[in-house]
Amino acid sequence: MPSRPDADDPRLGDLSEGEILRAILARTSRATHALIGPGDDAAVIAAPSGSVVATTDTLVHGPDFRLAWSTGHDLGWKAAAVNLADVAAMGARPTALLVALAVPRDLRLSFVEQLADGFREACAALAPGCAVVGGDLTVSDVLTVAVTALGDLEDRAPVTRSGALVGDTVAVAGELGHAAQGLQLLFTRFRDGETPVAVDPAALGEGDRAALVAQLRPSPPIGLGPVAAVAGASAMMDVSDGLALDARRMAAASGVTIDLASSALGGDPRLALAGGEDHALLATFPRSALPPGFRRIGEVRERTEDDLLLDGEPVDISGWDPYRDWDSASG
Amino acid sequence: MPSRPDADDPRLGDLSEGEILRAILARTSRATHALIGPGDDAAVIAAPSGSVVATTDTLVHGPDFRLAWSTGHDLGWKAAAVNLADVAAMGARPTALLVALAVPRDLRLSFVEQLADGFREACAALAPGCAVVGGDLTVSDVLTVAVTALGDLEDRAPVTRSGALVGDTVAVAGELGHAAQGLQLLFTRFRDGETPVAVDPAALGEGDRAALVAQLRPSPPIGLGPVAAVAGASAMMDVSDGLALDARRMAAASGVTIDLASSALGGDPRLALAGGEDHALLATFPRSALPPGFRRIGEVRERTEDDLLLDGEPVDISGWDPYRDWDSASG
Repeated sequence: MPSRPDADDPRLGDLSEGEILRAILARTSRATHALIGPGDDAAVIAAPSGSVVATTDTLVHGPDFRLAWSTGHDLGWKAAAVNLADVAAMGARPTALLVALAVPRDLRLSFVEQLADGFREACAALAPGCAVVGGDLTVSDVLTVAVTALGDLEDRAPVTRSGALVGDTVAVAGELGHAAQGLQLLFTRFRDGETPVAVDPAALGEGDRAALVAQLRPSPPIGLGPVAAVAGASAMMDVSDGLALDARRMAAASGVTIDLASSALGGDPRLALAGGEDHALLATFPRSALPPGFRRIGEVRERTEDDLLLDGEPVDISGWDPYRDWDSASG
Repeated sequence: MPSRPDADDPRLGDLSEGEILRAILARTSRATHALIGPGDDAAVIAAPSGSVVATTDTLVHGPDFRLAWSTGHDLGWKAAAVNLADVAAMGARPTALLVALAVPRDLRLSFVEQLADGFREACAALAPGCAVVGGDLTVSDVLTVAVTALGDLEDRAPVTRSGALVGDTVAVAGELGHAAQGLQLLFTRFRDGETPVAVDPAALGEGDRAALVAQLRPSPPIGLGPVAAVAGASAMMDVSDGLALDARRMAAASGVTIDLASSALGGDPRLALAGGEDHALLATFPRSALPPGFRRIGEVRERTEDDLLLDGEPVDISGWDPYRDWDSASG
């Protein structure tokens, strides 16, 4: 992204809250369902089904992203995508985002403008009609992006994670393990000791570039959430912490055992099972109800002492989180 | 609040996310409107009017609160109250809160439990039936509490800040200047140099104690938001940045001038005009429509070059924010 000379790109600490908000709002598109958008005490969003789906997820500099690796655009896109995925996982269509930004004073205005662009473009690409309808801006030493996403069920029942039935097909829509592969790349190729260094996409082959995009700017299959609900999904959730951990959660919530087929998990089943942050949709369907976009990866079985089986055998993989013990917030 | 011995009160960094969430959720009450509460990808909240009011506001350690001054209970209460006030200011009844917590690893579990208690008790006291329906927990070096509040309009039109009409009565419900007085007390009496020190309520007289409570644990008149809407309020907003600044905003949005009467602003009109954070409700009503709980403080006049007049004269007071230039995050 071409960057402006610093003289034209003030630090946020030198601007008023009003000036920063105006710059952000100029880049926000209108949400189809917004009855009252930004600028008042609160937004008002249509909820035609008579209920609203609501979820919140936060990205914190350090544990969740690094400025050396993510542009403002990447960050806005990802913050939108991960929240949209939680709405989609209920079978709902996203209608609106609220964005609470806590920003360091020395951050440049252009970064926040790129962030707003990332939100707008992620909504346009992944959930057309959804947009930022409100937000909040505060100062913090740690860049923090807390997003709330709202959605409408379009008169369908919500699809929870607790409805999987014995005999159901286990299926997934979206990538598995790509985001983790991208993060591995960042940790191994774009660090100087403990310090993250800027990514040079030209140094990467096509597969690595795709993995990096999956990590920094994921595109979960948001539109397939409502499709799954219409097709009669019995349970659904988004895969944020790795297929193994999230499938265990679904099995426990539903009182069943989930048996996955390693042959359906791509060239590296271990990566698919352990790698988080793809925000694929994991769902169970009555046999023969599998809608387009979902692929079969296993079957729901009677509850045994194991929540999760792989090819009928117990499996010892849990979630994967290389950030967990990495405390330094530099970069 | 009695504190546990440290051995029984682990640091958050020594617990799993699941353990912390369970401790918080055990202290959450059920929202009347929650169709699906915490534990799935998203909550589902009834929106009987076919629309939902939504707002977000964040409290960041340093700019917005200090741990030396606020208990976990205070912080949860205040984070709930300031968001509930924004919902009430649209004329809506709050239905649900979502809480995104970013917590330092060395914080104690008891602090987060107190925070959950503060949320629950603020909802019970200020907006019965509303409760925390979802949230997110991340790690950050800076304690950050980002809250989204949802509300229902009960089939009324939203009351915006842009509907004030010439001839309307300007009125307010709730305190003006008390929270600012409390903050002044903290800055003058409970600091050692630049470092905040713990508050000793026993050292304070009754008036000072009340001001401190207004700052640390405010009780805005949430229930009067719907009352104002029913009574026909033409405009409404919550007074978060001081009456002068917020009345100017309402006047500008409505294309009118607001003329306040100093005699209606208590013993220290300057404090009432400049002091923020009370989250009183500022509203305009057709003459003779003033509902119980609101008191007349002025009148809406034809637009002049001044947004705001005091006793018919221009007034030079703007908002008041002693935190603004106080960068140190210690304490």
